[in-house]
Amino acid sequence: MTELKPTERTKLRRRPQRGSHDTDAIYKILDAGILAHIGFVADGLPNVVPTTYWRDGDRFYWHGSVAGRMGRRQQEGFQVCATVSHADGFVLGRSGFTHSMNYRAAMIYGAARFETEREAKRRGMHAFIDRIFPGRAATLRPLKDAELDAMIVMWLPIEEASAKIRDGGVAEIEADLNHPVWAGVLPFHLAASAPLPDPRLGSGIPLPRYVSDYIAIARLDETLARHAEASGGA
Amino acid sequence: MTELKPTERTKLRRRPQRGSHDTDAIYKILDAGILAHIGFVADGLPNVVPTTYWRDGDRFYWHGSVAGRMGRRQQEGFQVCATVSHADGFVLGRSGFTHSMNYRAAMIYGAARFETEREAKRRGMHAFIDRIFPGRAATLRPLKDAELDAMIVMWLPIEEASAKIRDGGVAEIEADLNHPVWAGVLPFHLAASAPLPDPRLGSGIPLPRYVSDYIAIARLDETLARHAEASGGA
Repeated sequence: MTELKPTERTKLRRRPQRGSHDTDAIYKILDAGILAHIGFVADGLPNVVPTTYWRDGDRFYWHGSVAGRMGRRQQEGFQVCATVSHADGFVLGRSGFTHSMNYRAAMIYGAARFETEREAKRRGMHAFIDRIFPGRAATLRPLKDAELDAMIVMWLPIEEASAKIRDGGVAEIEADLNHPVWAGVLPFHLAASAPLPDPRLGSGIPLPRYVSDYIAIARLDETLARHAEASGGA
Repeated sequence: MTELKPTERTKLRRRPQRGSHDTDAIYKILDAGILAHIGFVADGLPNVVPTTYWRDGDRFYWHGSVAGRMGRRQQEGFQVCATVSHADGFVLGRSGFTHSMNYRAAMIYGAARFETEREAKRRGMHAFIDRIFPGRAATLRPLKDAELDAMIVMWLPIEEASAKIRDGGVAEIEADLNHPVWAGVLPFHLAASAPLPDPRLGSGIPLPRYVSDYIAIARLDETLARHAEASGGA
């Protein structure tokens, strides 16, 4: 575990007890998710784009197309904020004021770096696929140079970053405890449902274990977290 | 249905067939979700903050604390980008290039407006709670003036906005169809699990139907969408 140095942006302001600068806490949130929201500024105005991502050690990676909005802005020094959030449950208090949401969020700030070498892009794409489906990358039709060239692979060092977690039950005001309304937490999570094989799938190709595991384990975040642990939390 | 006028920011660039400016498509995505990511610029740098939200007609609402980062920036003309995304499934192609993700995303751009009147804030908070738990707001301990004063309620007109959807199966390259690896889609969704009553809950307070519905309907997005429909898609 490393304690990251807070900056003006990652300083914990409201409810600091919910926040952390531990890399352990940050990595755990990243490793349990699949969707990030990348913020960037264009012509002075904010933009937020959803994207998948992966982590490699102390680097947060995502990819895009050279034709996309980020691709066209490709330059060192391109400032972004990457936020990964998991919605974990509704908290129902006895007043509107004590309604809340359980969540886990990690935010990473910094200047995006761009991988330009084909081999670095290829390694990145393999790491990305293998984090979700361990061992799959090596079984695929290999990436072509033209495909790698059409792709941009970006990363941020996980240095200026923080985590924020709200969990547990209702934080009720004592005087409201007798108000006669149901109070508690309704938890939720991302769950996989039955896989849909491509209709053109050749006969004799079984459903891989790395897909059926998502059904067996039921929680997407847990399955992803197990993969990350199995790979040594690289 | 209204077709919104595309702007420089909402113009559909890549894969325009996945995008839309129909308010119907945009409202549907908003009504099925609970988590938005709000982007704003501070000192020239991007920030992305997760938050819950609600829709009231052609307005997108969210709330915060006067002590929070957005609260401290409270001013007309505060530019934001609000993005709501649902991750719907992994698409497993036969090459890294045809791996993808099924998703629905709506983006709204504009200058945030701030509700300053207590009654407008109160109506907003009630609409917010009732969209998730129909009928609950009227059963709660009423909001106090001091609570309303500690809260900021913000909104964007849903005018400069777009939707983007990727669904369906693998978009495979013909030449790869014989590559012997499993291909298809692994769908997923947010699912509720057993409610956890507050340990201090008085006896004789049953679990409300608006909570048990989330378990019965199984999909969070569908339950929320049904609520929105039942309320007339207000």
